Amino acid sequence: MSVQPLTIRVHDKDNVAIVVNPGGLPGGTRLASGLLLTGQVPQGHKVALADMAPGAPIVRYGQVIGYAGEPIARGDWIHEGLVHLPALPDLAGLAMATEVPAPLPALEGYRFDGFRNADGSVGTKNVLGISTSVQCVAGVVDHAVARIKAEMLPRYPNVDDVVALTHAYGCGVAIGAPDAEIPIRALRNLARNPNLGGAAMVVGLGCEKLLPRRILPDDGSGLDADDGGIVLLQDERHQGFADMVGAIMAMAEARLVRLDRRRRVACPASDLVVGLQCGGSDAFSGVTANPAVGYAADLLVRAGATVLFSEVTEVRDAIHLLTPRAANEAVARALIREMDWYDRYLGAGGVDRSANPSPGNKAGGLANVVEKALGSIAKSGSCAIADVLSPGDRVRGPGLVYAATPASDFVCGTMQLASGITLEVFTTGRGTPYGLALAPVIKVATRSDLARQWHDLMDVDAGRIATGAATIEEVGWELFRLILEVASGRKKTWADHWGLHNALSVFNPAPVT
Amino acid sequence: MSVQPLTIRVHDKDNVAIVVNPGGLPGGTRLASGLLLTGQVPQGHKVALADMAPGAPIVRYGQVIGYAGEPIARGDWIHEGLVHLPALPDLAGLAMATEVPAPLPALEGYRFDGFRNADGSVGTKNVLGISTSVQCVAGVVDHAVARIKAEMLPRYPNVDDVVALTHAYGCGVAIGAPDAEIPIRALRNLARNPNLGGAAMVVGLGCEKLLPRRILPDDGSGLDADDGGIVLLQDERHQGFADMVGAIMAMAEARLVRLDRRRRVACPASDLVVGLQCGGSDAFSGVTANPAVGYAADLLVRAGATVLFSEVTEVRDAIHLLTPRAANEAVARALIREMDWYDRYLGAGGVDRSANPSPGNKAGGLANVVEKALGSIAKSGSCAIADVLSPGDRVRGPGLVYAATPASDFVCGTMQLASGITLEVFTTGRGTPYGLALAPVIKVATRSDLARQWHDLMDVDAGRIATGAATIEEVGWELFRLILEVASGRKKTWADHWGLHNALSVFNPAPVT
Repeated sequence: MSVQPLTIRVHDKDNVAIVVNPGGLPGGTRLASGLLLTGQVPQGHKVALADMAPGAPIVRYGQVIGYAGEPIARGDWIHEGLVHLPALPDLAGLAMATEVPAPLPALEGYRFDGFRNADGSVGTKNVLGISTSVQCVAGVVDHAVARIKAEMLPRYPNVDDVVALTHAYGCGVAIGAPDAEIPIRALRNLARNPNLGGAAMVVGLGCEKLLPRRILPDDGSGLDADDGGIVLLQDERHQGFADMVGAIMAMAEARLVRLDRRRRVACPASDLVVGLQCGGSDAFSGVTANPAVGYAADLLVRAGATVLFSEVTEVRDAIHLLTPRAANEAVARALIREMDWYDRYLGAGGVDRSANPSPGNKAGGLANVVEKALGSIAKSGSCAIADVLSPGDRVRGPGLVYAATPASDFVCGTMQLASGITLEVFTTGRGTPYGLALAPVIKVATRSDLARQWHDLMDVDAGRIATGAATIEEVGWELFRLILEVASGRKKTWADHWGLHNALSVFNPAPVT
Repeated sequence: MSVQPLTIRVHDKDNVAIVVNPGGLPGGTRLASGLLLTGQVPQGHKVALADMAPGAPIVRYGQVIGYAGEPIARGDWIHEGLVHLPALPDLAGLAMATEVPAPLPALEGYRFDGFRNADGSVGTKNVLGISTSVQCVAGVVDHAVARIKAEMLPRYPNVDDVVALTHAYGCGVAIGAPDAEIPIRALRNLARNPNLGGAAMVVGLGCEKLLPRRILPDDGSGLDADDGGIVLLQDERHQGFADMVGAIMAMAEARLVRLDRRRRVACPASDLVVGLQCGGSDAFSGVTANPAVGYAADLLVRAGATVLFSEVTEVRDAIHLLTPRAANEAVARALIREMDWYDRYLGAGGVDRSANPSPGNKAGGLANVVEKALGSIAKSGSCAIADVLSPGDRVRGPGLVYAATPASDFVCGTMQLASGITLEVFTTGRGTPYGLALAPVIKVATRSDLARQWHDLMDVDAGRIATGAATIEEVGWELFRLILEVASGRKKTWADHWGLHNALSVFNPAPVT
């Protein structure tokens, strides 16, 4: 049985197409267009649709992703070695708010069942979070959390989980460094994540550089301060280990009692705060999963929700496509400010954006960070960019928001949680079991063969778009409806089903001391 | 009942003494010397033994720890606000190997029961380590380890533990940055820690920047390569989650079978590799716990063992006391090289050594990093410095070794494990429940009141030195004998008793991308 050769070309101007077939296509294959492959082309990789002289632009998504490094013939496999990286878009002179998209029609009537908090935010889970001010206390907190889950949690059936917010920050760090505000505000805002119901508590040691009270919110909202909300292990009242564990458990139980009284209530979709991310991307990310997520993002924005996209190094090469979409010049300038900060951060470390993509991205057909970026920003849909957050900042309002974070999956996830997401949508082409303890993560496969192989880890198969079995709009709507189901607790993601949760990894650009 | 006022003066030249009494001493107290306290002096804090004019040197350990910021009268409390920080010792012109200590008499006949490895190293535990090449896989590995411990480990009673070596490195990092070699070699050397019996395995995702094979040793020793030693979650043979977990468990069981055949054998003390560290230090650290640890370090070196001391920012201000002790000029130059690297690392982050000490250190009486450093290096005893390791390098031979690491407790512990320690001695004045999963940690309290309060967390009470109840030599010998007992598995540390283990925190000075 011969396989029907299938390729995708995204834009009229493109002089490349992507091979869809699992396993790729052998040399000698004739495409429907009549094009003859001169050699093997792996799945997700590019085939030249035209002859290209050295230096000729290679165009995908209607954008130049690179220049031919040597003569390329029609039908050749364009592997990464043939693609010269274009210059980085200059941050000076970018068009700002010049093509602000008109608002799309409002989407009314979509609701989910969430946990409404005193500050107006709405959680998708009802979790007791035990924050920490330093890694030193992690062993004791882990011990206490295991006991709380075994001995107490069964008596509080309306509480979903108890999670220790442990991390590597807090001491042995340059607490006064210019960039220290990033990890500190991230930890403070993590404790305020809406899924923690305003009831987080902090366990500190007592001699760490990060004072535990700096993790408590300073605006009076959020944490319940009846009992101070802080257990210090060095407190002189604790005579040994049992006392420490006992103090943590007692403070936890007071919060479990309160959290257990909460019930889900019907909330408009506008109360959602959804983070978007991709990881283990491939060449399909930009034509299947990310456009479908972008469509769902538009639906969410139309419904009044807040949608975050992130990952500085993965949008940097497409920044000239984002600043025109900024709602106003101030937002465009904020976008440029975050790109510039990261340029300087990478430069100080002696690297540049070529540190991205990963070997797996390349194996999946992404030649360089430009091609990756063009696919990555498809997640953001088509709406105006309403706001820009610095790393770890909390969301300030609805709409499409750019939350500047590293592209590292687990760091981005942590920083989006700090920004206040209550659910994340994660697209992957190579496959990852990634999950977060504080918020459900819906994973979207870019390829149907991945969705089949990882049948009990992938929540949505966007690969159907490549084969024509579904449209971008159909998968976008499917994802939108799934978001409402998962946010309502009616459906579990696979990551939550198996309890697969990555460690928090707070972004600390300042030195370790 | 009136309390006997007790103070400690370390060196003939000192013009300060430290208050020993818990709770400190009230103003009006007359010391045995006749000195009258002009006001309250907290425990661990300094009292002036002489009048000092502004700019006069304040001397402790026979060294200048700072200069009087304003007039100080005999009997005054010298709080940190009164102490001006001295200039950083210049790295140019340091005396190199000018005062190399003569070797102390060899100490024969001391043995412990350890697990001898094929490469000649000896473990103090028999642990199955499951290393990881990226945080993405952590959820799956944690799940698999929980099952291995529940379903398999009981059938292999000679194996002490199964530990997932999870971390925040591996992807979303500048893998080609100049400083990336530090975390990469640290991860490779962690998998080779002698307590893992040369049987570690690696779980990778498949698309991460850090290729899993880079964690395997390249010298043919160490890891058993019969089955390749690597499970890739993206391996196309895994049809879903159960297959991934099954593959990890199968590879683990092959190693459990082999590890279970091992038995402890009598080994000379020279096979020990002991790391020294302090954390949550106070003014007693330098007069009780650290000198006792230094004495034990001398005993270990005399017995032919390897002893590591670390923490760059905590020895930097005492570097002029270390370079003369270097065994030769090359070792002295290596010391200077590591100090210089860290000076530049901190400078690039816009900070300097004043980021240390922590608020808890200061509350404990340490005015600044100079005073902390002078106390910290007391751990190193009196022997010649035989070698210097860059962060994450593996030990090359016996004797007293300076292993350059950050001072952060959990980062230092991780990097010392990478260097190959099989046991750690940790001194603390403020108190910490710190522990490591891969090696026992013996915790030494600097104060008897801490040892009493944390009776089931502190393993040794060195505070008896301050009260005269024991000598430095006595506590040093007690610690040396305890090291042999713990290394033999005959005695458990409190951290291991309770299972208190901090997360690995690999030092990554390069940018996150």
